[in-house]
This record gives sequence, structure tokens and C-alpha cells, in this order.
Amino acid sequence: MSESNKKKRNISRTVIRRLPKYYRYLADLLEKDVTRISSGELSKLVGFTASQIRQDLNNFGGFGQQGYGYNVEELFNEVSKILGLDKKYKTIIMGAGNLGRAIANYKGFESSGFELYALFDKKTELIGEKIRNIEVKDSETMIDYVEENNIEIAIMTLPRESAQKVAEELIEAGVKGFWNFAPIDLIVPDDIIVEDVRLNESLYTLSYFLKE
Amino acid sequence: MSESNKKKRNISRTVIRRLPKYYRYLADLLEKDVTRISSGELSKLVGFTASQIRQDLNNFGGFGQQGYGYNVEELFNEVSKILGLDKKYKTIIMGAGNLGRAIANYKGFESSGFELYALFDKKTELIGEKIRNIEVKDSETMIDYVEENNIEIAIMTLPRESAQKVAEELIEAGVKGFWNFAPIDLIVPDDIIVEDVRLNESLYTLSYFLKE
Repeated sequence: MSESNKKKRNISRTVIRRLPKYYRYLADLLEKDVTRISSGELSKLVGFTASQIRQDLNNFGGFGQQGYGYNVEELFNEVSKILGLDKKYKTIIMGAGNLGRAIANYKGFESSGFELYALFDKKTELIGEKIRNIEVKDSETMIDYVEENNIEIAIMTLPRESAQKVAEELIEAGVKGFWNFAPIDLIVPDDIIVEDVRLNESLYTLSYFLKE
Repeated sequence: MSESNKKKRNISRTVIRRLPKYYRYLADLLEKDVTRISSGELSKLVGFTASQIRQDLNNFGGFGQQGYGYNVEELFNEVSKILGLDKKYKTIIMGAGNLGRAIANYKGFESSGFELYALFDKKTELIGEKIRNIEVKDSETMIDYVEENNIEIAIMTLPRESAQKVAEELIEAGVKGFWNFAPIDLIVPDDIIVEDVRLNESLYTLSYFLKE
């Protein structure tokens, strides 16, 4: 592993978690034709301190210039690259229920590089249906499909009971990462990526703060 | 403010964020008829250290007994109460698109105390439709409806462009909290609660770790 790669690997998860927020605000600025921005101005927008921002971006090579600030487009492109948004990932959705459909219909999805190939469900009444021209297929055919099409990502909208077993089958077939909406901690090998979306837990947190 | 209240207020957001995970695992244990559990066993399940767990739960009064561990049902009920899941909140969904529908159809929703009263949309073709017996109403009637029905919570599935303005109108009409899916940082008074769900940012994070 090269030195620069090593450095990258050591970036804390907390910093990584802040990058999407930079990305969102930079996209906004670009849309408004803002060409450059100081770390101070950026700080007011995103709510992190200017020194925090400089530190964060230094982690990735630092693109600011003393007395000029950041070139918005350059920074946007860099953050986009850091996030891997210039890459394409072959993606399937497991479960064609309400959540699976909502995700399939979600526009921001493919612009982030996730190319949706198919949805899978075991309910016969759903099989063959098309959502945005993408077919709902029989879960029974999932393994062959993943192998033949080199599917890399699975979005899990399955119930808790089946999510772990299906995840294992998908990994066996070649899936490298999961966007997991199932309310379960998937147990996977170290080289498999899981990004959880915990809607339930978010709702409980809201409930907690409302009560206080 | 009493001492115990003061203490509660000082619990860090990090601790609060861990509570829903305890809740989820305790619900699992209850379902499996497990009656008691040590902090060590709980640690293996949730992945926090046993000392972390004891510390977390001490924040709320500590329900464990030396040599016995925790009574699962008691702890579940306590965590549930701490999270305010025994309370009821009158809730509406802003936006009856795919995401709004998916949320309206979501079963875990009402069991968390969020009682869905209506959805609102401005698209005439959606108005009058029913989702799980809950009506999609004209956004034009939103303010009167919120005032008349004492709606406390709004789930925001609106586009970025309209979310802030609508949030302000809802606050004016009496809404106290938002479950916000709009990709924008809502600017609200200090006493209003916002819990964001950042699907985009979660997807970018997944993308980052896949690339690495």
C-alpha cells in the first residue's frame, strides 16, 4: 500500500461522515454560480468551524489557497471524486414493497453512480412488474442474476427475519456492499461494506427529543 | 428545573443515539422470551463494551442488579419510556410521492406513537386518494388542518425548494417537530425539534467506502 493510500485509510469515520454535507452545500453553491468561497464563508453554511473545515479538507490534499479560498467547482469535483461518485456500481434492490419502490423511484440514486439493474421479490403478484422500466424479478433467480451481471451492491428492504440469510447468499454470489434498511445488524466478512439506514432508530430519537 | 431533570438534559447526544439500538435488541430478547441479561451478554449483542452499557444506562437511573444483570422486560419498558415511545404524537406527512407513501405504509410507525392523521400534497391528481385509510389532502388546507387538529409532528418529504417555507408555516400553525427527509438543513427556532434522515448522504458514504 502506498503512503498516500495508507494516509487515506486512516481518515476517521467522523471526517468521512462530514464529506457528504460539504458535497451538498458545494452543489448548491455551484447551482448559484458561486465560483469561490473562503473556509469562513463555508463555515457559516455548513456549521463546522473554519479550522475544522481546513483540517477536514487537508486530509484529502487540501485544495484551498491562502487569501483566495476554495475554488467551488474544483472543490466540488474533488469531494465528488473522494466520495467515489464518479464510479458506477451495478445495483439491485431486494424487496419490491413500498420502501423498495420508493428507492427505485428516487432520482438522486443514479446520479450518485448506483445503476439500478433489477428489483427482487418473492411475491408472485409483483414479479414481472416494472418500476421506471426496471423489472421486478423472482427472488428465486437472484443468485444466478447477480453472478451473470456482476452485481456489486444490494439495497436491502427485506424484513428482519430474512435479511441476514439473503445477505449471505448475495455475498457468496459476489455482492460487495449493502445499503441496508432492514432493522438488523448484518454480520458480514471484513471486506464487505454495510451502510445502515435506521429509520426506526431515527424515529425513536425524534420521540426522545420531543418528550424532553 | 429539578436536579434529575438537569441531569437528563446533560446526557450527551451520543448516548441518546445509542438508546434506540438497546431498544431494538431488548425487543428481540423479549420476543425470544429471554428474561434477564448481564451487561456482558448485552455487550456481545449490541457491540458496545459492558462498561459503556452500564455507564449509558446509569445515565437514566441504572436498572441493573449486581450478580443478576438486567431484567429484560423492565429494561425494555424503561428504555421505551425514556425514548418517549409511550407518548402519542399527532402526525402528518408533507408530500404524497413515493417516499411519503412508503412512510405512510410503514407499520413500525404507529407503534412508535406517531399517529398519522393525513398526508398533504399539491398535486390535484393525488388529492382525495387514501393510503391505509388516511387521506391525501390539498396542501392549501394544511394550516387550518394543523391548527384545528393540534398536529404536533410533520414528516417532510418535500423537495428542497419548498421545505423551508412550508416548515415555517407549519411551525406558525403549531408543529413542534419534524422528521425531515428533505435534503436541506431546516432553520427553525430553538424549541423546535428536527430529526434529519439523510438518504443522499448515507448513499455517498456507502460510495466512499466501496471505493476504498
